[in-house]
Amino acid sequence: MLEASARLTGLLCGTQPMNDIWSPRATLQRMLDVEAALARASAAHNVIPSSAVAAIEAACQADQLNAEALAQDAALGGNLAIPLVKQLTARVKAADAEASKYVHWGATSQDIIDTATVLQLRDSFDLLDPHLQSTCTALAALARKHRATPMIGRTWLQQALPITLGLKFAQWLDALLRHRERLEALRPRVLVLQFGGAAGTLASLRDAAPAVTQTLGAELKLTVPAVPWHTQRDRMAETAAWFGMLIGTLGKIARDISLQMQTELGELAEPAAAGKGGSSTMPHKRNPVGCAAVLTAATRAPGLVATVLSGMVQEHERALGGWQAEWDALPDLARLAGGALANIEQIASGLDVNVARLAANLEVTHGLILGESVMLALGDSIGRLDAHHLVERASKTAVQSGQTLFDVLAADAAVTQHLSVEQLRHLLDPAQYVGQAHAYVDAVLALHDERAGRATSEE
Amino acid sequence: MLEASARLTGLLCGTQPMNDIWSPRATLQRMLDVEAALARASAAHNVIPSSAVAAIEAACQADQLNAEALAQDAALGGNLAIPLVKQLTARVKAADAEASKYVHWGATSQDIIDTATVLQLRDSFDLLDPHLQSTCTALAALARKHRATPMIGRTWLQQALPITLGLKFAQWLDALLRHRERLEALRPRVLVLQFGGAAGTLASLRDAAPAVTQTLGAELKLTVPAVPWHTQRDRMAETAAWFGMLIGTLGKIARDISLQMQTELGELAEPAAAGKGGSSTMPHKRNPVGCAAVLTAATRAPGLVATVLSGMVQEHERALGGWQAEWDALPDLARLAGGALANIEQIASGLDVNVARLAANLEVTHGLILGESVMLALGDSIGRLDAHHLVERASKTAVQSGQTLFDVLAADAAVTQHLSVEQLRHLLDPAQYVGQAHAYVDAVLALHDERAGRATSEE
Amino acid sequence: MLEASARLTGLLCGTQPMNDIWSPRATLQRMLDVEAALARASAAHNVIPSSAVAAIEAACQADQLNAEALAQDAALGGNLAIPLVKQLTARVKAADAEASKYVHWGATSQDIIDTATVLQLRDSFDLLDPHLQSTCTALAALARKHRATPMIGRTWLQQALPITLGLKFAQWLDALLRHRERLEALRPRVLVLQFGGAAGTLASLRDAAPAVTQTLGAELKLTVPAVPWHTQRDRMAETAAWFGMLIGTLGKIARDISLQMQTELGELAEPAAAGKGGSSTMPHKRNPVGCAAVLTAATRAPGLVATVLSGMVQEHERALGGWQAEWDALPDLARLAGGALANIEQIASGLDVNVARLAANLEVTHGLILGESVMLALGDSIGRLDAHHLVERASKTAVQSGQTLFDVLAADAAVTQHLSVEQLRHLLDPAQYVGQAHAYVDAVLALHDERAGRATSEE
Amino acid sequence: MLEASARLTGLLCGTQPMNDIWSPRATLQRMLDVEAALARASAAHNVIPSSAVAAIEAACQADQLNAEALAQDAALGGNLAIPLVKQLTARVKAADAEASKYVHWGATSQDIIDTATVLQLRDSFDLLDPHLQSTCTALAALARKHRATPMIGRTWLQQALPITLGLKFAQWLDALLRHRERLEALRPRVLVLQFGGAAGTLASLRDAAPAVTQTLGAELKLTVPAVPWHTQRDRMAETAAWFGMLIGTLGKIARDISLQMQTELGELAEPAAAGKGGSSTMPHKRNPVGCAAVLTAATRAPGLVATVLSGMVQEHERALGGWQAEWDALPDLARLAGGALANIEQIASGLDVNVARLAANLEVTHGLILGESVMLALGDSIGRLDAHHLVERASKTAVQSGQTLFDVLAADAAVTQHLSVEQLRHLLDPAQYVGQAHAYVDAVLALHDERAGRATSEE
Repeated sequence: MLEASARLTGLLCGTQPMNDIWSPRATLQRMLDVEAALARASAAHNVIPSSAVAAIEAACQADQLNAEALAQDAALGGNLAIPLVKQLTARVKAADAEASKYVHWGATSQDIIDTATVLQLRDSFDLLDPHLQSTCTALAALARKHRATPMIGRTWLQQALPITLGLKFAQWLDALLRHRERLEALRPRVLVLQFGGAAGTLASLRDAAPAVTQTLGAELKLTVPAVPWHTQRDRMAETAAWFGMLIGTLGKIARDISLQMQTELGELAEPAAAGKGGSSTMPHKRNPVGCAAVLTAATRAPGLVATVLSGMVQEHERALGGWQAEWDALPDLARLAGGALANIEQIASGLDVNVARLAANLEVTHGLILGESVMLALGDSIGRLDAHHLVERASKTAVQSGQTLFDVLAADAAVTQHLSVEQLRHLLDPAQYVGQAHAYVDAVLALHDERAGRATSEE
Repeated sequence: MLEASARLTGLLCGTQPMNDIWSPRATLQRMLDVEAALARASAAHNVIPSSAVAAIEAACQADQLNAEALAQDAALGGNLAIPLVKQLTARVKAADAEASKYVHWGATSQDIIDTATVLQLRDSFDLLDPHLQSTCTALAALARKHRATPMIGRTWLQQALPITLGLKFAQWLDALLRHRERLEALRPRVLVLQFGGAAGTLASLRDAAPAVTQTLGAELKLTVPAVPWHTQRDRMAETAAWFGMLIGTLGKIARDISLQMQTELGELAEPAAAGKGGSSTMPHKRNPVGCAAVLTAATRAPGLVATVLSGMVQEHERALGGWQAEWDALPDLARLAGGALANIEQIASGLDVNVARLAANLEVTHGLILGESVMLALGDSIGRLDAHHLVERASKTAVQSGQTLFDVLAADAAVTQHLSVEQLRHLLDPAQYVGQAHAYVDAVLALHDERAGRATSEE
Repeated sequence: MLEASARLTGLLCGTQPMNDIWSPRATLQRMLDVEAALARASAAHNVIPSSAVAAIEAACQADQLNAEALAQDAALGGNLAIPLVKQLTARVKAADAEASKYVHWGATSQDIIDTATVLQLRDSFDLLDPHLQSTCTALAALARKHRATPMIGRTWLQQALPITLGLKFAQWLDALLRHRERLEALRPRVLVLQFGGAAGTLASLRDAAPAVTQTLGAELKLTVPAVPWHTQRDRMAETAAWFGMLIGTLGKIARDISLQMQTELGELAEPAAAGKGGSSTMPHKRNPVGCAAVLTAATRAPGLVATVLSGMVQEHERALGGWQAEWDALPDLARLAGGALANIEQIASGLDVNVARLAANLEVTHGLILGESVMLALGDSIGRLDAHHLVERASKTAVQSGQTLFDVLAADAAVTQHLSVEQLRHLLDPAQYVGQAHAYVDAVLALHDERAGRATSEE
Repeated sequence: MLEASARLTGLLCGTQPMNDIWSPRATLQRMLDVEAALARASAAHNVIPSSAVAAIEAACQADQLNAEALAQDAALGGNLAIPLVKQLTARVKAADAEASKYVHWGATSQDIIDTATVLQLRDSFDLLDPHLQSTCTALAALARKHRATPMIGRTWLQQALPITLGLKFAQWLDALLRHRERLEALRPRVLVLQFGGAAGTLASLRDAAPAVTQTLGAELKLTVPAVPWHTQRDRMAETAAWFGMLIGTLGKIARDISLQMQTELGELAEPAAAGKGGSSTMPHKRNPVGCAAVLTAATRAPGLVATVLSGMVQEHERALGGWQAEWDALPDLARLAGGALANIEQIASGLDVNVARLAANLEVTHGLILGESVMLALGDSIGRLDAHHLVERASKTAVQSGQTLFDVLAADAAVTQHLSVEQLRHLLDPAQYVGQAHAYVDAVLALHDERAGRATSEE
């Protein structure tokens, strides 16, 4: 029931692969991976005997630990590494008493915990990035397909002017491309070894410290930073902020989709799935279940990012609360990011677009949304100000009489002496009044393609 | 490994009893408790046949559920109640096909989830309050014992004027007494039934709705509110804020204790426990492990409270993210509050007070902290302004020469003509310059005793 | 330009009266009010000469201060009280050199700043409460008027079942009534004097301390607490949380109204005002400008509450950052609460209800929203399960064929043999399927009236 | 009084230059700068007559606006740009009626507000970066000077092992170097034009849209993005997060300094300044006033970052609260960052280092902190385990007897048969047991110098 339960808390926002990365068991295993790598690195430089390595490596398996005792002792010691080392040492001792003396050699608890977290972050980035990429691909396909599909643009939740559906998709895509760029930039800053020993000087390793450090970094494929960073948490804060920003953008997408899914709008719908968001007695209902999960993540993420930022203000060479506050906040953010992304990826990959409803909603105001289009054209003949007054008056008439703006304008000689009925009809066609929408879509797609091309050529 | 794992995440801040209240299994059981009570209440008013109750009640056991399937289906349906009802119905059906038609009669998912949460909150309050009370008792005992123990008061992390250790304890106690008062006030507002059906009108229960509601409330010993509150979340926000405020006060206590535990101060220490915070190679070290757990909670709580507040802005009759964001935030807050309180209770119950170090630290400035005391006395004779100049000059001399303030003043005829050496010695005794400290301690203890007396007489 | 500028920052969420309470000038004046009261209280007990009072009182006018110098010196001293006392002393000295010796006697900076803040909070509560009351009155009137106005209830932003508009108003009202109750409860806890001197012991006032304290409290009409509370900030946290919760509820109201104002829904509209939210060229547009201001407040408040909670973890007898963080956060919260409330009050007092659109939106699904109503009635004859299948099939048919549910059901002999056309028509009338909506409205109105009655009888 | 008042709120954390960038007046001026540039760009492409430019430019002066009316109308229109354009138009009209028709041509309010904000952010970055650089220079000098100055490293607020003061400075510096790197990376992403018109399509500019956009970008020296970003706020979130992270690191520095300034430690002190943090009657007191301001900023920043992140979830093509929440949060963050940095820069530039107290504090445990050093040396002769037991026993003896560890060890034949008194003395010298501290300092200084060199060569 363990793994399922982990998903019951963190409920609607996790995905199994991301949950697996941050499960209690995986966390312990990553810590043991660091211990094993440390043994190899230390032996490589004769800090510990080579003969000790095999026994230590063999014991570095999370399944062998007593989780009950770990949890209990962790509360006494103040972190998970202390009882883990204790149990690990006992296990090694059972197999090879001599080897057990060399467990955890030179390291401090935070070295193990931080480095394990960095490894989990790397796993998380490696998991997210392809999904981010395929979400971008799906959005790019949607943007391309609906590059010219007119829809109403809405400001203040009110109908404003036409845009295209492709423009909307392109703007979501544009933001996600920036998040990928940010991820690329933060990887080398964040994916670094933590190894400093009790006070961050590696004093107990004496002259071997630099060599062991380099080998340990190489073992774990992590960059060796200029200096340990036990109480300098900007790396973790940057990671938290990136998760938070990504979730924010995904939340914006979910907000739009769920609004467009409203019964009264019906423009978009999450892809149907058996048992998902439907109601047998209310067949008109298409609950935006995926969007809700994303919006949940977006409600939770800011507080978690704030927690990590608050925790940066740490004491001296080891923190009293600020560091420990990361232990749940970072995994929560990773899980929320993973779940939110999975939902948007799934939605983007199968989004139901109701073109008829998009078109119908453009008619709701009987043409009022295109007053500006007529005004500009009229302005060419009679000046902007007069055109403004004319269209304003016609719009009011249309509202009061219930006529379409076309009918009112077509019946107004002051208009028709400058614009033919065909011209009027054209001017009141939303598809022709979308400004730079097509060009913007193209520009974003170019960015996407350039990036995708770069990625391909790098492979 | 389940329960232990739950404690591995939420690591240093949980307690087993509070973790038990909010464990995945307990959450499911509380939801099933509501389903069972609903069956009984519905049968009591002939909404469902009485014959259906036994089978439903019998199936309402969390252990019988398939957690794996629950987690998977919850993601599709958007909450845990939908698959829970599905599995529950299947289990009832296996025993009594007719009875299975009456499972979850008239309720909506949120009714079950919210009411279960309210039950868990009641359990949490019932768990916390006695611990809060015994923490108050422990602090009251400390305040009484150290009512007159002088120590240095510190402002800006600098030594300022003497206070008493009892005053410090009394101030902590005073804040905790207010938290108990707040808890008492919020209980009747928060511990209410949620029962409104699909759109909050209980329409499907027709005329029986009021009666079923009353009986359901009675079954669960919850107040029936004037109206369902699916998207009015002030009750949950108030609860979150209370947890957050309690944790904030506990964090202040932990901050003070951990600062006073600094090697260089050594005034207080957490009670020693085998394996707790000690170091075999550094016997001088007494790590404030309990305080660190509390400070971790205090770093995490504000973000979680903010999450619940952010979630209040909900859509129409059922929220899209704001409600769901409570699902992890409220349990996290309860766990953090439980863990932080347990730590402070344990510390308060066995706090090591090093009276010698408290006294020694009062000597660190060689009397400078008592300049004001002398100045006031001198001022009675020569006027405040002259007294001020005189003591200021003496203080500077003491700093520059390394002498004590007593020595400088005792050697200054301008002083000794007004104050005898005995008077000077008295004025420079920290114990006599603690102002209203004793009276404040007494006042807070009176509040505490009055409250404790009230509690006793109510029993 | 000063006052106007204050409103340019805090832009859309302030109201003039609340801005006035927290303006820089009012803040200084409140601090001076405390200094003047302190002089009177000290003189009353012969701690300072009575002759000094007049000069001190006369100088306690904010307009006389040099704000430029204040701001500059505050950065050096670390708070506003230090340079304020300096300037005040200089001004008193210019008038009465002897009196100037007695300025700020016995107090510490935080005594002045905290007590001034408490006075401003009292002003804020006094300002908010009548507006809260009149908002409740307006919502009660709306709830009464639209007690039976049917509208569609929406869950997951999808049409679900009918409710009444009055029920929606009643639920908003219900939450606001609880906020008034909370305000009443927190007033006596929060509106207390802060007076403890340099280290919180009032040592420098010697035996006169209790008497001066009592008189100072009486002068300012503030309760005297058991003990000073310089680093126990639960009172301020409770206040912040109350502002935050109030804003959250107002945000929920604004969310609903703005959603119902969507062009495609058109059910509600903010009251029209010249220049407010309209667009000359887009006469169909009714921007929810007031709602947007409230939603802005609701986006900002959680972070500010979190700030105050974070600040609770303070050091010893005077904080290093935690207290100071309140200085902007509390006024911001008060301003946001004031502005949000003013907007909702104004909206509630003149809300445009479009009954035709409410009715039209009930027809959008062609009756599908009332399938349950028919199912229940049919179930009385043929059993719930069969009724369910029958209605489910009919609903699907209606969706596929574009017919109304009535037409499909009326053409189905399996239905009409149990339900007449009149019965069907009745069952498909939203107004009759609103469950307990009327009763809930009545229950909330009763709460409101009881409270209003209590308020009246207290006058 | 305006500017001073602005500093009275935002009190201890602002600096005049940063306050000036974000003052109400500067905000209006930046908006007018955008309007003027828009007129020039539009005229350059014959969208408006060239003859209109001069009158518009002439009227674009913030001093000419009626702030009172602006504030009032902004509440009606929902943002500051609407009344600003109204007043601007009126002013242009007074001078040149024809020109007034072309004010704000093609733009939407958000174009003006966002672009003005971007200009203010550029000003903020330009202001901060040199200060960041000089803070780094100051820290580099400190790290170089104290590269080998031993001090006690502290974990859990307890004395642990020796480090060097230079290492501490180097770690602060290392984090700040990363913040500079991040700033460089975000500049091109953030410093972009916002220009999209009413629905983000620039439809009203017809074919001239791309050309006007390019020229407008060139006029303002801002990059033209692929697409307008009205409701894609990741750029602002990234900026907010950067401010928040920078403040977090500065807060860590302030935490350390204020802890080391404690009366009982006395290792560091903020530079003395007249009227700053001192106390005439308590000459021993050196209040960390600058650190307190930084810690205030660090308490406030996380909530403000969370606000901007929360605001990302925006509706359609123009947000309802999420965007508006940035208006105060971003300036607050900029001001806090500016103030916190100024304080740390000032402190770093004149930090008082008390080498004697640093040395004395290394003696507090009578050598216990160097037990590990002896243990390692002994271990070379007798094996680590035996050495461990030996030193552990000696440490306990030292604690119980009050002797120094040296005295205990020097009297123990089991020790002295392997280590001479000179060797013991050396092993117990903190300066020799600082591990890689020197190397780490050198590595960070190399990073700093490389970066500084790169900056120089780029000039």
